Amino acid sequence: MTFEQKKKRTRKDYRYQLEYRTRWSDNDMYHHMNNPVYGVIFDSIINDYLIRHCARRPMNPQTKENGIVVTSQCDFFGSTQYPDVIDACMRVNKLGKTSVEYEVGIFQQGFEDVKAVGGFMHVFCDQDTGRPMPGGMSAEIRKGLEKVLVEEKEEVKAGGAKGKL
Amino acid sequence: MTFEQKKKRTRKDYRYQLEYRTRWSDNDMYHHMNNPVYGVIFDSIINDYLIRHCARRPMNPQTKENGIVVTSQCDFFGSTQYPDVIDACMRVNKLGKTSVEYEVGIFQQGFEDVKAVGGFMHVFCDQDTGRPMPGGMSAEIRKGLEKVLVEEKEEVKAGGAKGKL
Amino acid sequence: MTFEQKKKRTRKDYRYQLEYRTRWSDNDMYHHMNNPVYGVIFDSIINDYLIRHCARRPMNPQTKENGIVVTSQCDFFGSTQYPDVIDACMRVNKLGKTSVEYEVGIFQQGFEDVKAVGGFMHVFCDQDTGRPMPGGMSAEIRKGLEKVLVEEKEEVKAGGAKGKL
Amino acid sequence: MTFEQKKKRTRKDYRYQLEYRTRWSDNDMYHHMNNPVYGVIFDSIINDYLIRHCARRPMNPQTKENGIVVTSQCDFFGSTQYPDVIDACMRVNKLGKTSVEYEVGIFQQGFEDVKAVGGFMHVFCDQDTGRPMPGGMSAEIRKGLEKVLVEEKEEVKAGGAKGKL
Repeated sequence: MTFEQKKKRTRKDYRYQLEYRTRWSDNDMYHHMNNPVYGVIFDSIINDYLIRHCARRPMNPQTKENGIVVTSQCDFFGSTQYPDVIDACMRVNKLGKTSVEYEVGIFQQGFEDVKAVGGFMHVFCDQDTGRPMPGGMSAEIRKGLEKVLVEEKEEVKAGGAKGKL
Repeated sequence: MTFEQKKKRTRKDYRYQLEYRTRWSDNDMYHHMNNPVYGVIFDSIINDYLIRHCARRPMNPQTKENGIVVTSQCDFFGSTQYPDVIDACMRVNKLGKTSVEYEVGIFQQGFEDVKAVGGFMHVFCDQDTGRPMPGGMSAEIRKGLEKVLVEEKEEVKAGGAKGKL
Repeated sequence: MTFEQKKKRTRKDYRYQLEYRTRWSDNDMYHHMNNPVYGVIFDSIINDYLIRHCARRPMNPQTKENGIVVTSQCDFFGSTQYPDVIDACMRVNKLGKTSVEYEVGIFQQGFEDVKAVGGFMHVFCDQDTGRPMPGGMSAEIRKGLEKVLVEEKEEVKAGGAKGKL
Repeated sequence: MTFEQKKKRTRKDYRYQLEYRTRWSDNDMYHHMNNPVYGVIFDSIINDYLIRHCARRPMNPQTKENGIVVTSQCDFFGSTQYPDVIDACMRVNKLGKTSVEYEVGIFQQGFEDVKAVGGFMHVFCDQDTGRPMPGGMSAEIRKGLEKVLVEEKEEVKAGGAKGKL
């Protein structure tokens, strides 16, 4: 997806949404939310979904299946700042045998335009070997992620209506 | 106030309350919210109150009156952790000519017991001289802070009823 | 550059290097440095270079030329963790009229293999209009950035010797 | 110790010192290191000492002895800011059967005056019961902490020479 396409994202393009109150320390010397904080919010909503809807237990030493971040990315279209409240909105763009690509959009409450769109790719690995899970990601995770998957094909089909993808 | 007295704080002891969603990065290796994050929340709710209810404009270069933190403190009674949502609750314990002592209690949603009680002291200074404002803090700030001031005398009077201060 | 090419980066591929001691709060629940912290280090070394070698003064309200981050990216090859000390290494990959692409590699002291390679693109804008500087970035910035520019052509030419790009 | 006494601390009053490079995100809207970051540095140098000199293994699930922070405190005398490099200096002020009080001073490289003095109290607890270790903290931890203990009596004796405690 291009920079210009991402810029047109709206809350409706996503499947899971959480509200985050910004903090004093989020603002940098330019009085705007510091860029890496967007990555903190990506981590937070994605792992929240994995914990609440995919039975993930990151604090359980028994858990042998770890989501390893391979690559992350973010495009910035505007800025937000403390003390605003933001909406983080999530979807899955691609679901492979052991990997998943998440996309998160950041919106400021009271505004329609998206401030930033980014995300990362998880590969679910066996903690002992550090290699991708031989049989693929566990059924519980896949089932949860499928619920927020928005396949590109679906968007292309809906393209006329949405006029933007 | 003693450690044991603070441990008995409830949401009702405070005058201003905001909800903060915890973030993945708040948890440390022990899987609990890292202690300095409590200080981040103190900063956040106190400055939110100053901005929204005391006409403070920290990003305005025209502002010549700065709140300088002289000392900060926190007592810990329990722990909270991502992905929980917390309630931060604020009050003013003491209001001087140029100084103010804030107290913040941190609660986890769904639980009554306070997790931590702390705060800090601001001295309002002239940005050019670095000295306390000659005429005291501005009327707008004082007026706002008075609304969340809980004087100890009031608590002593109410002591029988509250049975804890 | 591909994921596999980035994975082969060494300290020698960069032109500016700083040492950063990791902090307790850098580690997340998995006991490794949390991914957004890499972005914090990118911000830190890049702005350090801009301040010390390009005469940038981010805290000067007179400064009318702002570096706006348009897009950021990071690939992860390994992990590092508190209390290790890391080396951040920087270069410029592309220098346009108003834009610059920075690349940063993160290494752990005592190890040769790169842990992560990422960076971001700055567009230097006029603070008043929010538009790219009409005459391009200032001469002071360009002069500083040219010193750490490693042009792809140079690498291709040197390809036989380096055998990896 | 009073605010005025702490203000006179020098690097020589401490027993363990580490250098920390500040980061872009450390500065807040006032262009100074944000107060909770001091607490992050306290955590970092204290746990570094525990790991390197007291055989602590915070990431080892076998470890049954946890240092729980009961109270923390910080007094601020000046400010420091990114991109400066700071010296964190540590000592132990009090060593009990299961508890320890750490003090940390923060200095800016190139300057003698202390910017902030604070610290916290650890109680070493049994992870399973959450209660203080029945037999007191482990011998390895005590032995390590004794090496950086500066007893008040010692300071009183040395008072004439130091003229400040």
